[in-house]
Amino acid sequence: MFNNERQVQIEWGDCDPADIVFYPRYFAYFDASTGALFEAMGVSLRYIRDVLKTVGFPMVDTRSQFFKPSKYGDKVTIKSEFTEVGRASFGIRHQLFNDGDLAVECTEKRVWACLNAEGDLKAKTIPDDIRAKMLSHG
Amino acid sequence: MFNNERQVQIEWGDCDPADIVFYPRYFAYFDASTGALFEAMGVSLRYIRDVLKTVGFPMVDTRSQFFKPSKYGDKVTIKSEFTEVGRASFGIRHQLFNDGDLAVECTEKRVWACLNAEGDLKAKTIPDDIRAKMLSHG
Amino acid sequence: MFNNERQVQIEWGDCDPADIVFYPRYFAYFDASTGALFEAMGVSLRYIRDVLKTVGFPMVDTRSQFFKPSKYGDKVTIKSEFTEVGRASFGIRHQLFNDGDLAVECTEKRVWACLNAEGDLKAKTIPDDIRAKMLSHG
Amino acid sequence: MFNNERQVQIEWGDCDPADIVFYPRYFAYFDASTGALFEAMGVSLRYIRDVLKTVGFPMVDTRSQFFKPSKYGDKVTIKSEFTEVGRASFGIRHQLFNDGDLAVECTEKRVWACLNAEGDLKAKTIPDDIRAKMLSHG
Repeated sequence: MFNNERQVQIEWGDCDPADIVFYPRYFAYFDASTGALFEAMGVSLRYIRDVLKTVGFPMVDTRSQFFKPSKYGDKVTIKSEFTEVGRASFGIRHQLFNDGDLAVECTEKRVWACLNAEGDLKAKTIPDDIRAKMLSHG
Repeated sequence: MFNNERQVQIEWGDCDPADIVFYPRYFAYFDASTGALFEAMGVSLRYIRDVLKTVGFPMVDTRSQFFKPSKYGDKVTIKSEFTEVGRASFGIRHQLFNDGDLAVECTEKRVWACLNAEGDLKAKTIPDDIRAKMLSHG
Repeated sequence: MFNNERQVQIEWGDCDPADIVFYPRYFAYFDASTGALFEAMGVSLRYIRDVLKTVGFPMVDTRSQFFKPSKYGDKVTIKSEFTEVGRASFGIRHQLFNDGDLAVECTEKRVWACLNAEGDLKAKTIPDDIRAKMLSHG
Repeated sequence: MFNNERQVQIEWGDCDPADIVFYPRYFAYFDASTGALFEAMGVSLRYIRDVLKTVGFPMVDTRSQFFKPSKYGDKVTIKSEFTEVGRASFGIRHQLFNDGDLAVECTEKRVWACLNAEGDLKAKTIPDDIRAKMLSHG
C-alpha cells in the first residue's frame, strides 16, 4: 500500500536524563509521519481540515516496540506504510531506523473523524479518492 | 500486585486543534504515573538514580487503546498496577478514567537498567526488596 | 493584585540530557500556572471558552530569567500574580522557587481574545467582573 | 556575526485548541535552531558534548515577542544570529517568518557550561576557535 519515508534529526529537547529519546516523543514523531504520509499522497491535512471538514484521525490503538535507543543528534529514517484501509478507519506501520538498524516499530489504528452537531468526534466514511490513494503503491 | 492512583488535570498545552488531548501526551502522563507508582512504594526515582545507580526503566513495549477523548480542564484519574515482575523487567497497566468511564488503557513492559562501562544501557537484576514491594498489595 | 501559588513536581520527561529541566517546559508550567491563577479566582478556563466564547489568552510577550536549575524529582512552588490589567490585555509574573530559592522568574503579557467571523484571533475587552477579580487581593 | 536559517513545518501536536502554535513549542524550535546554528558553523553538539566535555548551553535569559500566530501545516523560516559573544556566555536572536512576515522574535542569553567535580553546571571559557567562528560572517 502507499508508503513514505522521512528523515528526522533527534533534538536535545526530545531526550531525557538517560541521554536517550524520551519515548513519548517517538509517538509525536510518528504522528507527524502519518501527516507526512498523507502529504506524500497529495492530500494535505490542511485540505482535509478546511475542505473536507474532517478534524483529523484520532488514534484508537497504538503500540510501539523499542529495540535500540536513539540519542541526541542521531539522524534517523522513518518508513511509514498503510497496513489496512477500512470504511472509516485505517492502520499504519512506522519503522524507525537508526544507522541501518530497526530501532522502533509502531503500529497505529486510527479513525477518519468529523465533528457532529454536538461538537463530538464521530467516525465518517473515508472519501473514495483518498481510499484509492491509500491502497495504491507509493 | 502493588498499585497506585493519581489525579491529573488536563492542561491546555496537552490538547491539539481537535480540542482533545494530543495522544503522545498520554504516554507522558503514564510515564509520570509509573514514577508515581514507585514513589508510592517508598522507592523514589531519585534514590534509584543516585543510590542504586540505575538510570531508569527504559520502555521495551507499550500499547494504548483510546476509548473516549479527554478535553482541556478535565480532571482524570489514572490507576496504575504492576502486572508482572521478572528478573530484570516488569509490566504495568495504566487505566485512565474520565468521569467514571475508562477512557484510555495502556500496558507497558520496561527493563530495569544501568549504564555499563561503555555508557550503554544494560538490563540489571531488580533488587530483591524492590521486587518484593512490587509483588505486594498496595 | 490577585495571586496564587501551586506545587509542581519535576517529571523525568521534562528534563534533558544535562539532567535539568529543558527550559521550554518551564513555559508550559507557567502557562498552566496562568490557567490555575484564573481558576483560583473562580473563573475556570472551561467557562471562559464555553460561556464567554473567548478562546484563551494568546501570549504577546514573555521573558524568563533562570537563576538556578531544577532537576527531576524536585518539588517546586510557583507563585503567580497579576502585575497589570488593561482593557484587553494583562500582565502576570511567575516566580518558581526550589528549596526556598528563586530559581526562575517569568513575566507575561497576554491578550484577552475571541475569534472573529473570519476565524482569526481578535483582542476583546476583559469583562468588568473578571477585571475586578484580577485587581483584588488574592 | 555568524548566522543561519532553517525551515520548520508546524506540526499538529505543536498546536493547541485555539488552532495556533502552543507558545512553549516556539522555545523548543528556537532551542533546536541554536543547535542548528552551531552545526552550520561546523561545530556539532555531539562534538561539543563528547570531545569538549561541555554539557550544553544552559539558558540564562530568554524573551519572545509574538506578532502573528502560526498554524498547523504552515512552513516557517527561522533566521538565527549571534548578537554578542562574551568570555563564557553569548547572545542569539531568532526571527521566525511566516509567509514573509516576522511572526515571532526571540532573544537568548546562554552560558557555555561544563559539569564540575560535584556534578553541578559551571560556566567555562568558550574555546578560541569556536569564538572566532561565532564572530565570523556566516
